[in-house]
Amino acid sequence: MVEEDFVKHWTSKAAALGILLLIALCSVSLQAETGENVWLRYAPLDTHATQQYSTLPAVVTVLDDSAVLNSAQREIVRGVHGMLGRTLRESNGLPTEPAIVLGTFSSLSGLASAAKQPRDLVPGSYVLTTGKIHGMECIIIEGPDADGVLYGAFAFLNKIAFHQSLATLHEVQQPSAPVRWVDQWDNLNGTIERGYAGPSIFFDHDTVRPDLSRASEYARILASVGLNGCNVNNVNASPHMLDDGMIRQLARIADVFRPWGVKMAISVDLASPKSVGGLDTFDPLDPKVIAWWQHKVDEIYKQIPDFGGFTVKADSEGQPGPSSYGRSPADAANMLATALKPHGGVLLYRAFVYNHHLDWTNPKNDRARAAYDIFHPLDGKFDDNVIIQIKYGPIDFQVREPVSPLFSGLEKTNEAIELQVTQEYTGQQRHLCYLAPLWKEVFDFDLHAHGQSTPVKDLITGKTFHRPTGGFVGVVNVGMDGNWMGNPMALANVYSFGRLAWNPNQSVKDITEDWTRLTFGDDPLVVETVVNMQLASWPAYEDYTGPLGLQTLTNILGPHYGPGVESSENNGWGQWHRADHEGVGMDRSVATGTGFVGQYPPAVTKMYESVQTTPDNLLLFFHHVPYTYKLHSGKTVIQELYDLHYQGAERAYEFISQWEALRGRIDDERYDFILNKFKYQAGHAIVWRDAVCNWFFRESGIADAKGRVGHHPDRVEAEDMKLDGYAPIDISPWENASGGKGIECAESAKTCTASYQFTKPAGWYEIDVQYFDQMNGQSKFQVMVRQQLIDEWIADDHLPAMKPNGDSSTRRWIIGIALRPGDDIRIVGTPDNGERAPLDYIRIVPWHEARAARGSENRASESRAEGMASTAKAKAAGTSSK
Amino acid sequence: MVEEDFVKHWTSKAAALGILLLIALCSVSLQAETGENVWLRYAPLDTHATQQYSTLPAVVTVLDDSAVLNSAQREIVRGVHGMLGRTLRESNGLPTEPAIVLGTFSSLSGLASAAKQPRDLVPGSYVLTTGKIHGMECIIIEGPDADGVLYGAFAFLNKIAFHQSLATLHEVQQPSAPVRWVDQWDNLNGTIERGYAGPSIFFDHDTVRPDLSRASEYARILASVGLNGCNVNNVNASPHMLDDGMIRQLARIADVFRPWGVKMAISVDLASPKSVGGLDTFDPLDPKVIAWWQHKVDEIYKQIPDFGGFTVKADSEGQPGPSSYGRSPADAANMLATALKPHGGVLLYRAFVYNHHLDWTNPKNDRARAAYDIFHPLDGKFDDNVIIQIKYGPIDFQVREPVSPLFSGLEKTNEAIELQVTQEYTGQQRHLCYLAPLWKEVFDFDLHAHGQSTPVKDLITGKTFHRPTGGFVGVVNVGMDGNWMGNPMALANVYSFGRLAWNPNQSVKDITEDWTRLTFGDDPLVVETVVNMQLASWPAYEDYTGPLGLQTLTNILGPHYGPGVESSENNGWGQWHRADHEGVGMDRSVATGTGFVGQYPPAVTKMYESVQTTPDNLLLFFHHVPYTYKLHSGKTVIQELYDLHYQGAERAYEFISQWEALRGRIDDERYDFILNKFKYQAGHAIVWRDAVCNWFFRESGIADAKGRVGHHPDRVEAEDMKLDGYAPIDISPWENASGGKGIECAESAKTCTASYQFTKPAGWYEIDVQYFDQMNGQSKFQVMVRQQLIDEWIADDHLPAMKPNGDSSTRRWIIGIALRPGDDIRIVGTPDNGERAPLDYIRIVPWHEARAARGSENRASESRAEGMASTAKAKAAGTSSK
Repeated sequence: MVEEDFVKHWTSKAAALGILLLIALCSVSLQAETGENVWLRYAPLDTHATQQYSTLPAVVTVLDDSAVLNSAQREIVRGVHGMLGRTLRESNGLPTEPAIVLGTFSSLSGLASAAKQPRDLVPGSYVLTTGKIHGMECIIIEGPDADGVLYGAFAFLNKIAFHQSLATLHEVQQPSAPVRWVDQWDNLNGTIERGYAGPSIFFDHDTVRPDLSRASEYARILASVGLNGCNVNNVNASPHMLDDGMIRQLARIADVFRPWGVKMAISVDLASPKSVGGLDTFDPLDPKVIAWWQHKVDEIYKQIPDFGGFTVKADSEGQPGPSSYGRSPADAANMLATALKPHGGVLLYRAFVYNHHLDWTNPKNDRARAAYDIFHPLDGKFDDNVIIQIKYGPIDFQVREPVSPLFSGLEKTNEAIELQVTQEYTGQQRHLCYLAPLWKEVFDFDLHAHGQSTPVKDLITGKTFHRPTGGFVGVVNVGMDGNWMGNPMALANVYSFGRLAWNPNQSVKDITEDWTRLTFGDDPLVVETVVNMQLASWPAYEDYTGPLGLQTLTNILGPHYGPGVESSENNGWGQWHRADHEGVGMDRSVATGTGFVGQYPPAVTKMYESVQTTPDNLLLFFHHVPYTYKLHSGKTVIQELYDLHYQGAERAYEFISQWEALRGRIDDERYDFILNKFKYQAGHAIVWRDAVCNWFFRESGIADAKGRVGHHPDRVEAEDMKLDGYAPIDISPWENASGGKGIECAESAKTCTASYQFTKPAGWYEIDVQYFDQMNGQSKFQVMVRQQLIDEWIADDHLPAMKPNGDSSTRRWIIGIALRPGDDIRIVGTPDNGERAPLDYIRIVPWHEARAARGSENRASESRAEGMASTAKAKAAGTSSK
Repeated sequence: MVEEDFVKHWTSKAAALGILLLIALCSVSLQAETGENVWLRYAPLDTHATQQYSTLPAVVTVLDDSAVLNSAQREIVRGVHGMLGRTLRESNGLPTEPAIVLGTFSSLSGLASAAKQPRDLVPGSYVLTTGKIHGMECIIIEGPDADGVLYGAFAFLNKIAFHQSLATLHEVQQPSAPVRWVDQWDNLNGTIERGYAGPSIFFDHDTVRPDLSRASEYARILASVGLNGCNVNNVNASPHMLDDGMIRQLARIADVFRPWGVKMAISVDLASPKSVGGLDTFDPLDPKVIAWWQHKVDEIYKQIPDFGGFTVKADSEGQPGPSSYGRSPADAANMLATALKPHGGVLLYRAFVYNHHLDWTNPKNDRARAAYDIFHPLDGKFDDNVIIQIKYGPIDFQVREPVSPLFSGLEKTNEAIELQVTQEYTGQQRHLCYLAPLWKEVFDFDLHAHGQSTPVKDLITGKTFHRPTGGFVGVVNVGMDGNWMGNPMALANVYSFGRLAWNPNQSVKDITEDWTRLTFGDDPLVVETVVNMQLASWPAYEDYTGPLGLQTLTNILGPHYGPGVESSENNGWGQWHRADHEGVGMDRSVATGTGFVGQYPPAVTKMYESVQTTPDNLLLFFHHVPYTYKLHSGKTVIQELYDLHYQGAERAYEFISQWEALRGRIDDERYDFILNKFKYQAGHAIVWRDAVCNWFFRESGIADAKGRVGHHPDRVEAEDMKLDGYAPIDISPWENASGGKGIECAESAKTCTASYQFTKPAGWYEIDVQYFDQMNGQSKFQVMVRQQLIDEWIADDHLPAMKPNGDSSTRRWIIGIALRPGDDIRIVGTPDNGERAPLDYIRIVPWHEARAARGSENRASESRAEGMASTAKAKAAGTSSK
């Protein structure tokens, strides 16, 4: 029966699309805002804004039959449904009425509009235009390939989201480079190295997850900002990635990526032929090894015809590599590239190769030199489908580094920049640290290769040395958490990475504003506040963690999170700042230091070789100077160190009240979630500030001219309180707790109390409780004033520590408490498991002072909101430049 | 050790208060808005509004040690913490600094302010004032008893919530009557008769719930609007309420009520001495029966010293009563009252006594007469602690009735009015039907007893005939659902009941505005919109269910929900409208009818006796008239019937877009939840409209002058579509489905399709799917246009029906669909369990017409919002009158 056939047809179609459509049609009105829909919320426009789209065509038609074009078509149906409340008709073939037409140049050739198509657009480009096809007025979304049409579809939807006119479209966009990839450092067991948002969306229990709906959604998110590749596993790769059964499973990931134009790639372990392949060697020049890899690659392409390629981390941090056989990275890379080449795959070889057993007593040793020293001599020796993947700086994703000299050290080799979207060294998504401004500085940094203007963006996109294959790799590490990154605010980094990889010339402020409007809506106060906070966040984080080129002064031997000033010294990892009693900084000059500065082209070498011409913010990366050295700012190094740490922590503190001004202007779920993150950040910024300042105060012996460092009259150290059940403990390293000490409950205690008799004048106070929240327990804390319980909470955050230290130190802000002299203030801790209700100190400060410091008193918003409204209006009219 | 004692002390205190405090301190920022916190959200004021409270005292002190005063103190701490972010100090005894002082008159006597206390305030009254105590400037919250101080504390917090000045307070409030109770019709098994918000908060599995935190919270909610009693079980009472074990359990409920000044009461079954007491009789004059009850009552008071009393439903709807022994209600009531009197308890005897086996063929029979006929002759025969509890009208909580003549028929007897807050006949909280305007009309209705002005409010509060003990009983029936009533909007009925019971002279508009601001915040557009919707809702519901005095034309033999025009005819229940081919209405006149009109005092009798002087909105309650009878409006009865039904359904339809204009102005959770309720209501209002109009069209044979009734050119009947797997079914009663028929899947079908070829011009359309959503299954529906899935959903609502009818009929609104001639529109149903994806019809209407009908096109909000802003401002300044 016809009826039955029809039912079968749509049933199978619905089975494939069903979940997606339900999400698409219902998400706007029925789902709470968790961040899950990222910037693709397609929130309904208000009635006024919808009016200009009343003449929108009713049909969206695709001229070619392809999975990617079907995604583009469905995305437009979904987006228009969400924003305008209309369900467009899906159609195939030439329009018989006014339509939105999706097609590649070839399918549109011969039709009216085709004549206007620009020549020579690179793959992924798109053209938005209007024109007549078969006599019908159409909106035409076209490109040289299906991927381009898909990107055009997202661009079209953004025009509606930004209330821009669709009356006359003529927009041509092309991506800056072919490689716009993300890396995921996912392990087969489901964990993610440096992932801060739950387990892997790809792997669980050493297999690919049965349900890959999150992976599919991830591909859609990547495509929406023009990203076109995803390496799904840790660069510290498991050899089992190449097991036959695993390749079959990986093909399932590639299947859900494909409709979004995202190529799947994997990291491989160079030792695989030996460790899992049954060979006695993995020498890249051994014929058996070559054959083994060729066979593997052929096997992969049989199941994944559009497989992207391999990423290799070798001879680095314990990973095996060609050096075991005296072979060079070029030998290894070319061997793999040869196998990939017939299938169109690429080989990304990471330049992050260094010896982590350096002799730290030799002042000429310098980890920063490694990448250039190893790869520069090999320039020209790599095959055409090899790309050298270079971290932005010579160390490892620090809060600030100079750009890697290797970008200008490879002229006959493809290169890609590796950026870290996951905030390994920059607050792990608990701290707001928006990295687009950092990346923008890197892209725009002029290396002056051959004395010409050669900004990094021109080198990596191949413009400078005419290399066809290069671009951008971002380490993202999304996880199963609903909001993808662990914090909705951190998605700005994902969005901006995509936007900048597409076009590194775009204004970061514009990108940030776009992200904010798509994520939180058009309220001018919201847009201005969020954009300002994002833009202020990286400088703030740099200031309170490692300014003046010190890099992130974190515990580099641990989770890379809290402060650990000495952890980078006196070991082989080479991430040194060389601070001693007299001075600080690592001399990397040619004249007296490690010579690293000499790796740059002459103009840059000249700038960094001299203490005078090195910018303040990188001074200590390049030079060792006395603490009393006068900066360009006119301050001494030590005083600037103190000032910047205080300034950064103050900025973080102000984030709380800046965010609080948005209450009721965005949804409560995200408001509450993010507010708690800001409260945490403000507290942890103080931990950072104090740790670094106290450490340098002790090392230098030079007091803070403003009298702050080491003086905390508002604090009551827990160890100085009257203790019952609690006992003092030493915190390691000492600078991570106030006074170097804390308290925790005795092993047998059921509850413990620490009490203090208040002596200041009667009035309204804020009581801040600095405590430790470990992973191995959920202690309970209660605060009593006299017999009145004024606050209680469970220490159930998931901070990366099993003991009280700078990683677990956190703060409870208790505002608006009436105190008077003689009041008994008492903390009651109830230990749980290995976490013994540990406390560092309490801080009691007059409430009006605390409010003034947060900026709550003068946060008048109306005039600023009006200023922003005109900006948003100009943008809606399409008059703002990009 | 002192330390340990202290820990013990606060531990036990914290155990009692812990959960409460955690809620109190965290609820504002961490909990989603579910309606759980009703009007007691204590949402933070914005910074600007907090400034005037900067000099608020830091301490709140209680002068007497009582559970109720401690509640008042904690409530002030909680409210101020939420709204102003300050934690006040809790103190006891005379203030030593500026303070908020809570105390009874007696504890304040002799202190400076006491001299100013008004004399002779009734229990529960409060005084808010400022003054010096021991030289300290204080805010004084006082009353003749602790309950009054508690009510004063809530009033004080409201002043802050409404941004009113606290500089000079002098406010005296006293309640209108001593009985301000709620009834819960909860059964011991946990179900609730006429409850629409989940199971009982008191009972489960024939016992009292172990966790009574919701019951405690309910008492707090009641106290916040001055309600002081709660009868916890169904008036159709289980005799097991009086089991010894149960009394012990009931004492636990009383324990959680007590700190909030709420007395617990229960309903009793008069037959208990026989059914569970082992006696052979329950004759109220039998000494054994008298002794049994006295013993029971003494037992109760031993465990519940402040027990409120009994409620009795007897000789009514199958309940046993004194008539079995030829005794009168007075005999039964006085017997119980005598037992209660020494303990201070009261006996509420319901006047809802009638014969539900009336001979419907006798035109002189009239259920409306029963209460007056039975109770008026007994006036003066009831003891002083008996209260006759009289439903507002002579029938049963219909959408409109005249007031009961019994209010003026008892001069020497205490009386209380019984109102229904749970919307049994008024939409069961799925329909917005705000009843405060109905109650206000009742309170203000002048019965002209003895030719004087005697509005109902003066009769029930005892003013007219100087009866000391009377008041207000509201049947609320909250349940375990987070939002208490099944719909956050329905909480306005609870709030208004309390406010009006406290003072029936208050303006309903003011009360509604207060509720709205406390519930949804101060946004002027929100406040104006919600207030307008609430005030429009009862007239709209009346119009589309039973206007002109027809009462609610619901299925009175079923769930009292959907339409059932004939269900009240031809049976003994006496709720008749007497419609036939010629005319409609029940003749209750003295001259030619049942004589009910003669039960009123002469002035009222005169008004209702004449067709001409009876108001249109009660005409058919009192008179039988031809369909062509001309109303005061100038229209015929039949045309007005049609017009009002269309008008009411249109108002309900407009609610959708009125609510949609608030998107982003209130929290998403409640916005979404309530929007879905409005969409449902708009669809069900059409079911009502069509059922009643079609029924009267067939009965009268008179066509709608406007051509609407029976003409639905936009509809495609499901039974007229091309069916595969589906088969037509008859719906009963016929008027509850369009065309009297629907379709459902054949018993064996896996999926079924109904399809239709569209023939109208190409354009944007709305497709409304009218289907049935039964309790006994969760069918799936999908809508395809050609092969495109445009919508799908699961029929998982919990409507009160096991088959397709007017109770289960519901609608899916699918907006913004592009259609063109020849399109195949197809509904695919997947049956589940007993629910076989039943469908009534689809409606296809041009989208711009649908939008215009909803009023979406011209919902300009700015000017209206401005108008409201000035109102809110005036109110904040305290200049608005109440």
